[in-house]
Amino acid sequence: MSEFDLIAGHFLRGAIRQPETRVANGDDASIHALADGHELVVSTDTAWLGIHWPKDFPLDDAMDRAVCAALSDLAAMGAKARWIWTAITLQHQDQALLMGQGIVRAADRHGVEIAGGDTTSGQQCGITVTVAGIIPEKTAMCRHQAHVGDHVFVLGSLGRSALGLAEWQKGKHDGDYVPYFTHITPQLFAGELLAKAGIRCCIDVSDGLLQDANHICEASHCAMRLDLNCLLDAFPSPKHREKDVLIQAVLTGGDDYALLFTAAPSMVIPEVAALRIGQCVAAKHGVYTSTPFLDNRPYLMDYPRGFDHFT
Amino acid sequence: MSEFDLIAGHFLRGAIRQPETRVANGDDASIHALADGHELVVSTDTAWLGIHWPKDFPLDDAMDRAVCAALSDLAAMGAKARWIWTAITLQHQDQALLMGQGIVRAADRHGVEIAGGDTTSGQQCGITVTVAGIIPEKTAMCRHQAHVGDHVFVLGSLGRSALGLAEWQKGKHDGDYVPYFTHITPQLFAGELLAKAGIRCCIDVSDGLLQDANHICEASHCAMRLDLNCLLDAFPSPKHREKDVLIQAVLTGGDDYALLFTAAPSMVIPEVAALRIGQCVAAKHGVYTSTPFLDNRPYLMDYPRGFDHFT
Repeated sequence: MSEFDLIAGHFLRGAIRQPETRVANGDDASIHALADGHELVVSTDTAWLGIHWPKDFPLDDAMDRAVCAALSDLAAMGAKARWIWTAITLQHQDQALLMGQGIVRAADRHGVEIAGGDTTSGQQCGITVTVAGIIPEKTAMCRHQAHVGDHVFVLGSLGRSALGLAEWQKGKHDGDYVPYFTHITPQLFAGELLAKAGIRCCIDVSDGLLQDANHICEASHCAMRLDLNCLLDAFPSPKHREKDVLIQAVLTGGDDYALLFTAAPSMVIPEVAALRIGQCVAAKHGVYTSTPFLDNRPYLMDYPRGFDHFT
Repeated sequence: MSEFDLIAGHFLRGAIRQPETRVANGDDASIHALADGHELVVSTDTAWLGIHWPKDFPLDDAMDRAVCAALSDLAAMGAKARWIWTAITLQHQDQALLMGQGIVRAADRHGVEIAGGDTTSGQQCGITVTVAGIIPEKTAMCRHQAHVGDHVFVLGSLGRSALGLAEWQKGKHDGDYVPYFTHITPQLFAGELLAKAGIRCCIDVSDGLLQDANHICEASHCAMRLDLNCLLDAFPSPKHREKDVLIQAVLTGGDDYALLFTAAPSMVIPEVAALRIGQCVAAKHGVYTSTPFLDNRPYLMDYPRGFDHFT
């Protein structure tokens, strides 16, 4: 049973649904109607030392990353970020100052208010960030709104965070890709722009391109054909022995927080930096999944399709 | 530096304040104006195995308690509870089922929707619950709205949860007080009733009566005189050697989730079960603190005034 099965299996089954809820548990965030033609968008995200960031990583940067990763869920919905609530767990009291500084830095940079929080001691250092934003009603970008024929776009880099993490773990803290790992940019401005332009299906790539593309496929009941060549074009031409490492990072590397979205071929994409990387196609035999193509042939992998906490 | 100094020192200082925010970081919950004459009330709360519940405690009951403890913050503001978001951390995948069952049970019982969540693996089993509710504008009960001369009331039992925990830890799982520890009742109905009746100052007693009373004193710039005799009247007459244990439980025991509120002497209290336990008085020399009186004399303690994670 994967992390996602776990969540789906045990946490979606409360009996209560409030009348204001427009998108319930299961997307990047839940959406709740407000009275003035806007909707409230809320998400929650946890990060642990040793799991979500390396043990030798500065705590302020780790907290900055955690806040930004949570805000990325609002970007994926197209919402304007407004508030965060931070529940931090410390092993030692002297971790508090750096953690606070990192949280405040990220919140201030992205114009969000730290509206509350909780501080506990524990065996592990970590943080749960709850984020809330606002969006005009019925304009949020959801996973289930892709259609067969839609073009697939990515906005932001893919694979670079995983390559940066690999450099960091080898002790190359000044490696070329390290900044992509150490600093997360939630695509808040682009997300709002896309939603305003009429894009209706989007997800942020936090667990790897293929895994997150599959979330769209499953929710939208379609499949996806992805073009590896155009994704690799963004990198300097790799030496032969490095190519597989690069492809694996692009397809399965986590923590990039690029936006993956779909749009009808007739749509004008407002964001010039968006890269078209594929198309939504009809699912065969009910298999709602994404398939990478290299040189027009399906690319076969012998590694997991993304990060899973329990496998 | 105490837990509360930590929070106040490092987490209240973000530069951003959103225009909708009516009560910011620092009360039981933050409050955000909606457009239709209502306000959104949000709070977040963390609980860890081995810290917030004993290692031999059933996981479903622990999750039920965690959800109820978080909902109690909404009760303290007088809000109607609507949604929860749960971020759970598992040590083993097989903890998921029981944890999910406990969360769903509490959410369903209190009519709140499980609107989202996150699941991670970690070294420690725990949960962060974010709760949101709705309240008519400007009716929320806050810590800073007590006045000198106000009567002080408590609604719900005090000390029984700590006595139940002590019984549990001695292996007396069928002890008289154990149900007060194992099952939390967030006073949601009473909280709404009090706010509607015009009560403006309330807190839930989660960290011990004296510590939480002090939060009101500090926020309202007053002191408080509390009458231990009437609190002890709620218990069977203790044997002499047990009296100090009882008093310590009543004054400093956590996890009772009673509502502590203040009201002008002229006010009609709608909740007949509310017990008057004291009065707000002028602070001397800027010391905003509560003082327990036994037989009309200040009661001197030689133990900490409440639970603190870091001392």
